[in-house]
Formats: sequence, structure tokens, C-alpha cells
Amino acid sequence: MSPTIVTLLTDFGQEDAFVGVMKGVILARAAGARIVDLTHNVAPQAVAEGAFLLETAVSYFPAGSVHVVVVDPGVGTARLRLALRAGGSFFVGPDNGVLSPALPEAVRGRRRPGEPYRARAVALPDEVEAVAIENEELFLKPVSATFEGRDVFAPAAAFLAAGGGLGGLGRRIREALALPAFRAAAAPRGLRGLVLHADRFGNLVTDIRAADLPAGAVLAVAGRRLSLAPNYAAAAGLCAIVGSAGYVEVALPGGSAAADLSLGPGAAVEALF
Amino acid sequence: MSPTIVTLLTDFGQEDAFVGVMKGVILARAAGARIVDLTHNVAPQAVAEGAFLLETAVSYFPAGSVHVVVVDPGVGTARLRLALRAGGSFFVGPDNGVLSPALPEAVRGRRRPGEPYRARAVALPDEVEAVAIENEELFLKPVSATFEGRDVFAPAAAFLAAGGGLGGLGRRIREALALPAFRAAAAPRGLRGLVLHADRFGNLVTDIRAADLPAGAVLAVAGRRLSLAPNYAAAAGLCAIVGSAGYVEVALPGGSAAADLSLGPGAAVEALF
Amino acid sequence: MSPTIVTLLTDFGQEDAFVGVMKGVILARAAGARIVDLTHNVAPQAVAEGAFLLETAVSYFPAGSVHVVVVDPGVGTARLRLALRAGGSFFVGPDNGVLSPALPEAVRGRRRPGEPYRARAVALPDEVEAVAIENEELFLKPVSATFEGRDVFAPAAAFLAAGGGLGGLGRRIREALALPAFRAAAAPRGLRGLVLHADRFGNLVTDIRAADLPAGAVLAVAGRRLSLAPNYAAAAGLCAIVGSAGYVEVALPGGSAAADLSLGPGAAVEALF
Repeated sequence: MSPTIVTLLTDFGQEDAFVGVMKGVILARAAGARIVDLTHNVAPQAVAEGAFLLETAVSYFPAGSVHVVVVDPGVGTARLRLALRAGGSFFVGPDNGVLSPALPEAVRGRRRPGEPYRARAVALPDEVEAVAIENEELFLKPVSATFEGRDVFAPAAAFLAAGGGLGGLGRRIREALALPAFRAAAAPRGLRGLVLHADRFGNLVTDIRAADLPAGAVLAVAGRRLSLAPNYAAAAGLCAIVGSAGYVEVALPGGSAAADLSLGPGAAVEALF
Repeated sequence: MSPTIVTLLTDFGQEDAFVGVMKGVILARAAGARIVDLTHNVAPQAVAEGAFLLETAVSYFPAGSVHVVVVDPGVGTARLRLALRAGGSFFVGPDNGVLSPALPEAVRGRRRPGEPYRARAVALPDEVEAVAIENEELFLKPVSATFEGRDVFAPAAAFLAAGGGLGGLGRRIREALALPAFRAAAAPRGLRGLVLHADRFGNLVTDIRAADLPAGAVLAVAGRRLSLAPNYAAAAGLCAIVGSAGYVEVALPGGSAAADLSLGPGAAVEALF
Repeated sequence: MSPTIVTLLTDFGQEDAFVGVMKGVILARAAGARIVDLTHNVAPQAVAEGAFLLETAVSYFPAGSVHVVVVDPGVGTARLRLALRAGGSFFVGPDNGVLSPALPEAVRGRRRPGEPYRARAVALPDEVEAVAIENEELFLKPVSATFEGRDVFAPAAAFLAAGGGLGGLGRRIREALALPAFRAAAAPRGLRGLVLHADRFGNLVTDIRAADLPAGAVLAVAGRRLSLAPNYAAAAGLCAIVGSAGYVEVALPGGSAAADLSLGPGAAVEALF
């Protein structure tokens, strides 16, 4: 049997030993786990960005993987800690919407135009098994008010990676916080979306899905109109391009669209057609 | 038997292949080792910061782990290279104090008020087995004057990870350089400490231990007086909070205390009670 | 048998989940692979820098390792995707010169004075087996125009790591793009070279090889003349030093030569003798 993969996605950065410590806790309890970093450079406490990056990644991991996500402005408060089983894989993290990619889009619903991506309570569908992590026997104690990644989430992930079932972590729950599906809203002349993430190359990743665009659609951003380029090399300057997760990006080949336009997450974009 | 964990903590950064090369050397000689990065972003040559980050991490790894620490302003000089066995685990690195967390605090002693954390020679206690790494047969040759992490420390770690004993690395030694215990000094009205580290969130981690504070103590930093918050969400602006390693931190939830106060490692802080 | 090592070297950075996704694809198909990051912080699209960092690393990995390099300004275009077998190890990446360290230096040739390191087509020698990766059955589909690392190169690496032969990836080729050997050109008074890379410490790594220097040679850079220091601790200020890959570096112990001289990759340096 292949070893269980445990992925980690956090806003902890890499200047500290936080991530290494979580790995120590996991390997001490699930020595065979294969740990993979998704990223630890989510903007501090940017729950929606963390969820979006998770969404771009999970489908590439085998069923049975355990995805641990810790972007957690509410660390140390009474908010729930969740473990989910969905699509054959496990998800562990705070109940603030960051685990939303585990849920069907129909459950997550649509963002209201003019609003950011904001979590709201949803009823969980039958195919998603969910528990509140409350079995304190598994925790490292005392549980720190600032680092539940180490004391709660890593032990929960190790428990699952070592073959434990969700029921061993805590009581079944039927509701959780979820972010709307990442998908630009319909507008009179096309779609009205926003920037979800700026990647390392300065590409501005939007919530406009390529699949929602008819041929000939153009992207409007910061007073510019951009048509879709087939690849970076074909573009002469600022362009729109379909990124690897199926969302339209604003790119400046050889430069940074984010710097060129002085835009980042939250900025408005439109698709016109 | 579980594979041996080898942790790496350096100031090499991640812009180069230095860390990857050390992993190649280790895996070429100890194919079963499980390598875990603690951090590679210690400020260049910041020995005390490296030691502090090591201290926050080692207790979360199983006994038998090999902890390699390379923060080494003296690379290429005649300073010793150490391998220690303490508390059932191994420590490998230069003899400059960076391995201090392997030593009992009573051996490390206390920092003199007004001084930074600075290494001094200490007699090693019987329970800490220590050798100078001098068995050149293990080294990659020629040994680089700038990268002993690759040529000396990685081979030594691989030797231990593959089951070798300390004696195979070199001669027994009885003295090493050590940093004082990370613990603020007593002062007339409380404790006088300093900032050890600024983490990714801009939290200023001090050497003031929560365990040394009576109820009602307040933190004084940069002309501000801060009481202890139970968690980030409970704080309205700049606050003090007990960090995950048991040291008091100055935090600005949703922002960066380091940027807000323009302070970093070495800055003075006081606990008043 | 030891598990196959797969190294990754990219310009993807660590702000995104790109690298984690490639690992998911590899582990889903070659569950036993041991994945090692070389670096993901190559300057965006800096093919020569990527090749140079690869060159500093590959010899430290055991034969049979699979080295995946994705620095790829031409992603999404018709440029070939290569897999090579050289020196008992495998190399996977775009056909733009970034895999040059797999080739003998005689094949790569010398840089023309006054020019940067620029790829040109070379005939591959018999001892280097090479194919164009064209077996679409292995690809993730649809192949993204912006992320062949995920859809083409990771699957190809997994195929090799799982024991597949080069022939299973595509048709044999006899020519590829290659960068000149990294080696400063002869000049009337010594050698004329350039800076290849600035490392995390601000050391300026040049293409001047220590092995090409007679005793007493001095380095000329930015109007300064520097003699070779035996180690960082022996230098009083800006110095030249032989770096760990055998190339001369400009260093400022305790500071950053790159910042002090305001120089970076491409800057001119000379060795005088």
C-alpha cells in the first residue's frame, strides 16, 4: 500500500520553524506519511486566497490524501476545528471557509455582486462527512492559543494518515462555514469578477472561468481591454490568458502585471461579450 | 523500524541549491532518511536566532532524530565542528553556540544584563556525549572553505542517520561554546529582556517566559504598556500574548508589531510586576 | 533497492501551489519517489541562472536520479520538451538550454566574448540519449498553455522514476539547444567573465573558475581590485573567494557584495594575471 500523503497549506511563511514543527508532530505519530508542502506563503490570514490555492491543487493528489489547511485568524477562539471526508480524501482545518474546496459548488453558492468572498454557514450534504475535532486525547497539551496547527491540526492529520477514522476525532456536525464558489457574477454585458491571487510572476488570477466565456470575449481591467492570448510568447505586452486552473489571468510576459497595473487581490475585472 | 528523521536548520535561504545539495549528500549515503526543513531563513549568520528557532522545534521530533544546524560565520576557519548526543537525539553543527538547545540550561547559564546572547566556553555534562567531527574519510573532498554544510555536516548527519555512532565521527570533547539560556534577566521591577526573533506575522518574540510572570504583569516596549491577551481575536490593537514556545510576544493582530514599532531582534523589552 | 530521487528546480517561487501540484502528480504515479527541491527561486525565466544552479547540484545526487528543470519562457509554444539520459541520470525539461549541465562541455562550446550565455543548437554526442517527450498518453489533459510542469514534465519524470525507459516518452532526437560552458573567456591580461548569480548572502558568483587562475591572480570588478581570501573570516571587507562550486565569488563578509556594489547577474568581472 502506498504511504498516505499529507499536504500542508498555511500562511506561516518560511522564516520560522512552524511548518517543520508540524511535520515533526505528524511524523512522530504517522511515521510513514509523505508530507507535501502546497504553499506556506498565503498572505497572512487571507482565508479566501488559501481556499483558492487549495482548490487549484487538490485534484492532483490521489484519493486518501489528507489536506491540512491552516489560515486561521480565529486561532485560540471557540470557532470549531473541522475534519471532513469528501471525494475520498480528508480535509483538516479551522471552520472559517478555508476548506470550502472540499464542498460541492452548489452547496457553496454564489458570491453576491459587489461583495468579497466571505464565509457563511451552509448545511453539509450527505456525501461530505464532517466532524468537529474535539477528542482532546489526541491534542498536544497545553493547546497553544496561537499555534493550533501544531497542537490540534497536525495530530488530527496524523491520526487520519495513520488510518484512523473521522469518528475518532470528534462529534459529527451538519453545518460549516463555506465560501461561495470562485466564479465571477453575471453582469449585463458579460461577467463581473475580481482578482483572487497574484502569483510569483505577477500574474493576476481572476475568478473569471474560461469555461464561462464565449469566443471573442475581452477582459476589461484598470481601463484596459485585453484579448485572450494562446500563450505567453504570443502576447505583445499586457494580455489575458487562461491559467492552469481554468481561470483567466492578466499577465505581462517578461514582467509583472500586478506591478504594472498596481493591482492585487480584490481588484475588479470584467469580461465583456 | 521507522526511518531516521534528519532536520535541517540553516541561514542558506532558498534562492540557491545549497539545501537541495545537502539533501542529495544525505540521501546518497542514508537512502532511508526522512529529511525535514525547519527553516533556512535564519538571518544571515545570526547564531542566536538560529539556536532559538532550534529550541522551539526539537522537542516535537521523536528521539533518535538528527538535527543539523548550519549558521556559521566561521565557516572555513579552524573552529571545531560538533556532533552531540543529548536526550536521545543527535545534533550536528559548528562549535559557535548554535547547538545550545541540546545542553541543559544550568550548563548554559544566564545572560548578563545589558549584553546580547553571546557564546562562551562551557564544560559539557556527562549526559551530553560530544565529539569533534574529524574523521576525514567521511568528508566530501576537497572541503570547501565556504560550504561545510555540504562537505562535512551533511556527511556526518548521514553517518548518524545510517546508524553510525558518535565515536565514528571523531574524538571525544569535554567543552564547547554555548549561548546562555534564553530567559530574561531579573530586574528591580520585574524582568528585563530582549527581542529574539520577529516571525512572519511581525510578532516580536521576546526572551520573557510566560512561566516567569505573575498574574497581572504588563509588558513595556517602546514606551507602550501592554497587558496579556488570551488570543489574537481578543486584542484591540497592539498586545502581548504568550507564544507557542512559551515566550511572551508583542503582536498586532491583522498587522505587524515589528513594522508598527520599527523593532526587531535585539530590541529591549521589560516585564513589570 | 533505494527509491528513485526526483529533484525539482524551477522559477515557480513558493507563493503558489505550483510546486506542490507537481509533487502530487509525481507521487500519484510513482508513489515511492523521493522528491528533493533544489530551488524554486530562479529569477523568472532566467534560463542561464537555472542551468548554472543545476550544474552546482547534480553531481551530489546518486546515479539514477531524475532531475526536472522548469524555467520555460516558451511554455505553451511548439518548442520541444526534452528528456535526456546522461551520466547515469535523467534530465527532464524544455529544450531551451536549461538542461545543458547534462551535456559534456566540449559539446556546449565556449561563450563568445561580449555576449551573454545564450542557447544554440548542438549535435548531441552518442553518450547522451535524448528524446522529445511526445507520448501524449502520459500527459495530463488538456495540456495547459501555462503549466507544462504539471501536465507534461511531472508525468514524464514520474514515468522515469517508476522505472520507465526514455523510449516510452517519445522519439529519439539528435540535436538540442545548449548553453555554452560556464567559463570566463581568455583575455589579453587574464580572463573576462561575468556574474552568473547572486546568492542569498549577496555573494556574486562569477563564471571565473578557480582552476583557471594562477597564484596571485586578482579579481577586478566595478573599479575595485580584490585578492583571493582563504575564507570569509580572513577577509577585511570586500573580497574574492573560491565558492563551493569552484567558481570565484565576490563577497562581503557580514554584508552583501551585491548590494554594496549594486551589481547582479550579467555584470562584468575580470581576472588579472
